[in-house]
Order: sequence, then structure tokens, then C-alpha cells
Amino acid sequence: MNNEHIVKSYDLDLNQLNDLIARMGGLAEKQLADAVQSVFKRDAELAAKTVDSDHRIDDLEHDIDALVVQMLALRQPMADDLREVITALKISSDLERVGDYAANIAKRVMALSQVPSVRPAHLIPRMGTLAQAQIHRVLDAYVQRDADKAVEVRNADEEIDEMYTSLFRELLTYMMEDPRDISACTHLLFIAKNIERIGDHATNIAEYVYFLVHGAPLADERPKGDTSPSVVSAPSKSPRKEGSA
Amino acid sequence: MNNEHIVKSYDLDLNQLNDLIARMGGLAEKQLADAVQSVFKRDAELAAKTVDSDHRIDDLEHDIDALVVQMLALRQPMADDLREVITALKISSDLERVGDYAANIAKRVMALSQVPSVRPAHLIPRMGTLAQAQIHRVLDAYVQRDADKAVEVRNADEEIDEMYTSLFRELLTYMMEDPRDISACTHLLFIAKNIERIGDHATNIAEYVYFLVHGAPLADERPKGDTSPSVVSAPSKSPRKEGSA
Repeated sequence: MNNEHIVKSYDLDLNQLNDLIARMGGLAEKQLADAVQSVFKRDAELAAKTVDSDHRIDDLEHDIDALVVQMLALRQPMADDLREVITALKISSDLERVGDYAANIAKRVMALSQVPSVRPAHLIPRMGTLAQAQIHRVLDAYVQRDADKAVEVRNADEEIDEMYTSLFRELLTYMMEDPRDISACTHLLFIAKNIERIGDHATNIAEYVYFLVHGAPLADERPKGDTSPSVVSAPSKSPRKEGSA
Repeated sequence: MNNEHIVKSYDLDLNQLNDLIARMGGLAEKQLADAVQSVFKRDAELAAKTVDSDHRIDDLEHDIDALVVQMLALRQPMADDLREVITALKISSDLERVGDYAANIAKRVMALSQVPSVRPAHLIPRMGTLAQAQIHRVLDAYVQRDADKAVEVRNADEEIDEMYTSLFRELLTYMMEDPRDISACTHLLFIAKNIERIGDHATNIAEYVYFLVHGAPLADERPKGDTSPSVVSAPSKSPRKEGSA
């Protein structure tokens, strides 16, 4: 086996790895789109289908893990190549979690379909669409090795976090106004939280892409996550709606 | 540089890697213990300290990432050694999330301390203690390369999941009975969810340990996660408490 042959085999492996990530990313996007659609339309059937499909993402993660270990063992990549392989491993772990959260959203839709309809939390589909767009863009940034696009994705996560905090307040208010909505609103609250976490994973992937391109981490650590943990109660922070609770 | 020298350097790196994981594990345990303690005692000061300390776990994760990449590049480990290194990378990612969830619990305690005390959700400290024990045992299993202990940890996760589902129902009931408790109960609900997720990460680590020892994944996939997504409403599933909601 000469050197050129080794290099060619390595390229084949790398192509296969990129292909697996692309398939996993596509699947995660689809799962999220279906989950969000099932919330929007209260479609329990679509939700059930989404839950059933989650294992396909898990299977791809196993395939990627196995290929990475094989590449590290047989090809012993160095420097940039090594960075590629490790980044792929990390991205696949984030995509697996995106799939997991999508399945979780769908499970809650199945429960929601059994309770009376609550007031529409109109922010949920918007948050979902935004999270989908984030995943889509960060996967583009990965394929194109576009660090600027990755930074844009990271910065846009704030919008999802803000939506989540608004929604958190909104749902608390609904629950206080009508305790019969508590069960449904709680599910909606967790659905929103799952979407917010998906946004965080898009941010993680964006940071990996930046690192992949520049070989150094993004300098300014952006605080991740929502601010809802510090929400004390819904009405007290909405002074304009006096006495509404 | 002769072979023996290379092997010795590799052992030094591996020791350092194991040491970093041990420190990270110890810190994650401590953070979780402090977070649970702060829930139990409603201690906002301890909670604030816990939030502030989270970055130390993140720093250790970065150190581990850097060391792993360096080991892969310079030592090019094969077979079992490679498995060690990749497992360490995966475990550090799970420990980082455990720290993240602990910080999230603490943030919610800080918010809880500003609202009137709700009925004690007695299951939360119990869940927390159990999750702590799971993290402790799985780190022992890792240090001792004890696959049997890892399997025990994985199987014990069911208990945390069941507690979480009970707690979910309990908190929904409280909210329905007194809407003034909604804000506080929602924070408790997320605290419980964070503990439940920490249990999942103990399970993940257990599966890595098993793989590390046996070179093959655990055959029977245990369904992870809680069953609360399918809870439709609290009272309907508690037939013994007729009319209480």
C-alpha cells in the first residue's frame, strides 16, 4: 500500500463521514419540522410517527461513532484532519440530542391531543420555525465551512431565548387565570423548553464550525440558555396588565 | 526518542486524562450536592455560589478536549487505548451537562426564594440524593473499570424516572388546588426535570463504561427518559384521591 493509496482511502472515509453527518442533519431537521408541525396542527398521528422515527437518528450516531473510531485507528489523522474527525463526532452528538428533543415534543403533543384545547400559545410555532432555521443554517455553515455564518447562527440564538422567556410568562398567566389549563400549559411549557434547548445545540454546532475553520475557539463566551429560571411570577413582571391574574 | 519513552509519555498523558476526568467528576458531584442542598434548605446564597462555580467544570472540559486532541495527534493510540481516549471525551461531555443542570437547579432556587413557600415537594430531595448516588457510583465504575457496577447504575435509573413522573403529577395537583402556587411549582417541576436528566447522563456514562470494558455496547436498549410526557392530567390518574382536585 503506497502513500497515495492511503490518502485516497482517507478521503473516501472523510467523504463518508461528511455524508453521514449530512444525512443525520437532514433527519434531525425533518424530525424537528414534523414535531413543530404536530404542535401547530395538534396532529397526534404525525406526532406518533415522529416518535417512532427517532431511532433512525440514533442509528446514524452509532454509525458515525464507529466510523470515527475506525478512522482514528487506521488512518491516524493529524492536525486539520484530526480536527475534522473530532468535530464530526461532536456534531453528531448534538444532532442526536436535537432528535431526542424533537421526539420529546412529539410525545407531549400526543398527550395534549387528549385534553381540551387551550388558548393558542402562538409563540410556540414561531419559536419552532426559528429553531428549525437555526439548525438548517448551521448545517449549511458546516458544509460550507463558513465561520461567519456560524457566528450569525450563534448570535441569533438570543431571539429564541427571549421568545422562550416571554412564553414562560405567558403560560404562567394562563395557568393562573384558569387552573383547568394547567395540565395542557405544563406540556406546552416543556415543549417550549425543548425548542429552546434545540437552539442551544445549534449554538454548540456553530461554535464547533468556527473552531474547525479558525483552529481557535470563539473568543467572547456568549451566555447560553434562557432567563426563565429567574422569572418569579408572571404578573409581577407585566406591570401593564394590572390585576389580570 | 525510543519506543519505551513514547510508551511512558503515553502513560503519563493517560494518567493526566484520568486525573482530569476524576476532578471533573468530583466537581460535578459537588455542584449537584450543593444544588440539591440549596433546594432542600431554600438557601439562595448556596445556590448563587453553585451558579458561580459552574465555569470550573466548563474549564475542565476544555482541558480534557485539548489533551485528547493532543494525545490523538502525538500518540496515535490504537485499539484499547483509542477506546480509552474517546470514552474520556464522551464522559467529559456528559459531566459538563450534569454541571449545567446543577447550575440550572440553583438558578431556580434563587427565584424560588423570592416567592412564598409552597407545600414541600418531598420527592425532590430524595430524587436529588438518588441522582447524586448514581453519579458517584458510575464514576466509581469508571475508575474501577467495573462493567457490572455500570449495569447496576443503568438499571437504577428507572427509579429516578418513576419518582419524576410521580412528582410531575403531584405538582400539577398542587397547582390546580391553589393557583397562587403555580409559579413556584413550575420552578420545582423544572428542578425535578433537571434531576431526571442528570440521571440520564449517569446512564450514558454507565453505557460508555460497559463499552470500554467489553468493547461492545450493552445489548438491550433500555428506554431512557421519563413517562411524564404522556401524563394527561394529575387527578384522572390518581383514582384513590377522588374529587380532590
